[in-house]
Amino acid sequence: VTRTIAFFTDFGSQDIYVGQLHAAAKKTGSDCPLVDLFHDVNSFDIHAGASLLAAMLDYLPHNAIVVGVVDPGVGGKRLPIAVELGERWLVGPDNGLFSRSVAWSTSEAQYWTLESPIGIAKTFHGRDVFLPVAIDLADGELGQIRRVEDAGDISTHRAAEEIEGDDQRVIHVDHYGNLISGIRGVAIAPHQNIVIAGRVLAHADYYERVPVGECFWYVNSIGLLEISANQASAARALNVKG
Amino acid sequence: VTRTIAFFTDFGSQDIYVGQLHAAAKKTGSDCPLVDLFHDVNSFDIHAGASLLAAMLDYLPHNAIVVGVVDPGVGGKRLPIAVELGERWLVGPDNGLFSRSVAWSTSEAQYWTLESPIGIAKTFHGRDVFLPVAIDLADGELGQIRRVEDAGDISTHRAAEEIEGDDQRVIHVDHYGNLISGIRGVAIAPHQNIVIAGRVLAHADYYERVPVGECFWYVNSIGLLEISANQASAARALNVKG
Amino acid sequence: VTRTIAFFTDFGSQDIYVGQLHAAAKKTGSDCPLVDLFHDVNSFDIHAGASLLAAMLDYLPHNAIVVGVVDPGVGGKRLPIAVELGERWLVGPDNGLFSRSVAWSTSEAQYWTLESPIGIAKTFHGRDVFLPVAIDLADGELGQIRRVEDAGDISTHRAAEEIEGDDQRVIHVDHYGNLISGIRGVAIAPHQNIVIAGRVLAHADYYERVPVGECFWYVNSIGLLEISANQASAARALNVKG
Repeated sequence: VTRTIAFFTDFGSQDIYVGQLHAAAKKTGSDCPLVDLFHDVNSFDIHAGASLLAAMLDYLPHNAIVVGVVDPGVGGKRLPIAVELGERWLVGPDNGLFSRSVAWSTSEAQYWTLESPIGIAKTFHGRDVFLPVAIDLADGELGQIRRVEDAGDISTHRAAEEIEGDDQRVIHVDHYGNLISGIRGVAIAPHQNIVIAGRVLAHADYYERVPVGECFWYVNSIGLLEISANQASAARALNVKG
Repeated sequence: VTRTIAFFTDFGSQDIYVGQLHAAAKKTGSDCPLVDLFHDVNSFDIHAGASLLAAMLDYLPHNAIVVGVVDPGVGGKRLPIAVELGERWLVGPDNGLFSRSVAWSTSEAQYWTLESPIGIAKTFHGRDVFLPVAIDLADGELGQIRRVEDAGDISTHRAAEEIEGDDQRVIHVDHYGNLISGIRGVAIAPHQNIVIAGRVLAHADYYERVPVGECFWYVNSIGLLEISANQASAARALNVKG
Repeated sequence: VTRTIAFFTDFGSQDIYVGQLHAAAKKTGSDCPLVDLFHDVNSFDIHAGASLLAAMLDYLPHNAIVVGVVDPGVGGKRLPIAVELGERWLVGPDNGLFSRSVAWSTSEAQYWTLESPIGIAKTFHGRDVFLPVAIDLADGELGQIRRVEDAGDISTHRAAEEIEGDDQRVIHVDHYGNLISGIRGVAIAPHQNIVIAGRVLAHADYYERVPVGECFWYVNSIGLLEISANQASAARALNVKG
């Protein structure tokens, strides 16, 4: 069975870290497929990352292994964990990044803790701790991870239990200027208007349904409420910053 | 036979869309090679994309399948098409993005229409319509595409027939500040000077042929007329914006 | 034996060049793994690239082949070379980009010169000269390269011999605002303070060891002295530009 490893980080697609993940994977001799799902989560923004990852999860292969890293506490006390979610795994810090994925999943999460190898860099656990575990899992081996008896010991689990409703914020402004919220579209009827930045916006199915430059809302391709403008930047039109 | 799928889009290499293309490909179980040819066409700029793609096409494997998406009309009335161009295929919207590729090719184009799967997102046909067809083609299957009897029904074909001469504009300003035009270099003799932004520029073979900071023109590595400066930004020197 | 080809360039991850490297590799029929180690070296900055590449080299597979291109003199008189460094190879311009890698290596470098194919573009040797040689090497063939008898003929060798100490400059400002110097961390005791931009900074092991926003220095994940701030941008705090 081939399992894909998908990276989801704030490492920056233009920076020196993503290439090192790929190099480290090749260095192990593994030839499992690697996908750069997204590397430009706003730096340190665990909350935005949590909703975005949860929304993108269903678009990954059913048995994908996610290495998810938005980790301002790297090197400190937060645990390194692996979360088993149906056939998928999430490997990364126990800081809440995986909480929405757990909360939105129909599968019950199983938690595992990782052992950090000795003598590694304290500031690049993506490369030195999480990736090696993901590669073991992709090879069908549990390696050095250990099952957690009491899920209550895991911050991710507690955060998932405490979630009340979706994140109402804009969690990502894309390069077209579309504003992606943390609100799942299933909860909203198309005849509803929404209010953002003091403006009332109506629903439209897609861009050409409104005049060029006009803003509207719709449910986007990962199931989230998004505000767009036809062939224009909604961010600029509404003066919202990314 | 292994066939490479090459992506050419305005999805943005720093955004959330490219990773989803790769994830969706892996989700089908396909292991065909994927190449991110270019993802930073200026947003919605079909014309710039058309010349750039046509110029890059010859540098792809002879049997490559291009998923080309610059598609402000996604979800609307423009057709989803596949263009057979010799052994290569181009899959994407029928909005003119492929018109220069057709016009510049020595092979006659054959057109096919796609069926959009039911219940897909209306705003990400790259992932949900074009990519699945490309994967079928890479696997040697025609899948759900249907041959077009009358090429005149296809906008791309009509646009290709109406093209008169090359695009004289700057179609891409690269990150060094080089200005890439839509003009094919074969048409220009090296002793000719060119005029841009009120300045007369002479030809040089490569950067070191002129003093540091000086602008010149040459035929670039994809056959287009390009304006550069030696170890400096021609865009800044000539005050041209990308 | 599978050998990975790793790219290290100033081609820009958002630009039209990286995709062409990948396409050209696929066009040869090679299926050797390709890693985009880093493509955003500051344009033309050979010195910054030299230290950064040398520091990252150990994190590549032991038999990796690097195509390294920061090459403002492309098309001119500088030689195209291949450097054999233990089991790894570096392929690129003889302009000093590989000098730190040679100087910091415990293996003695062997130098080879390449022949440029006839009729190629004068401005994209990464695609047309260096990559084909790297693919030959990955396939276990020496192809058209020729062993250099006298290392003194090679600029890279002379530059490596003349290096005195590490590069004290900031060679990379990452997207978090961390300042990466060219100074190897092995030479510095943790109790030492360092001075940058008129500020005295103490050592800390990792981010959470200091208050949010405070700057400190540490040895980063590729062994270089780096200045960071906890959950903030050291570049902004110290007013240092990238």
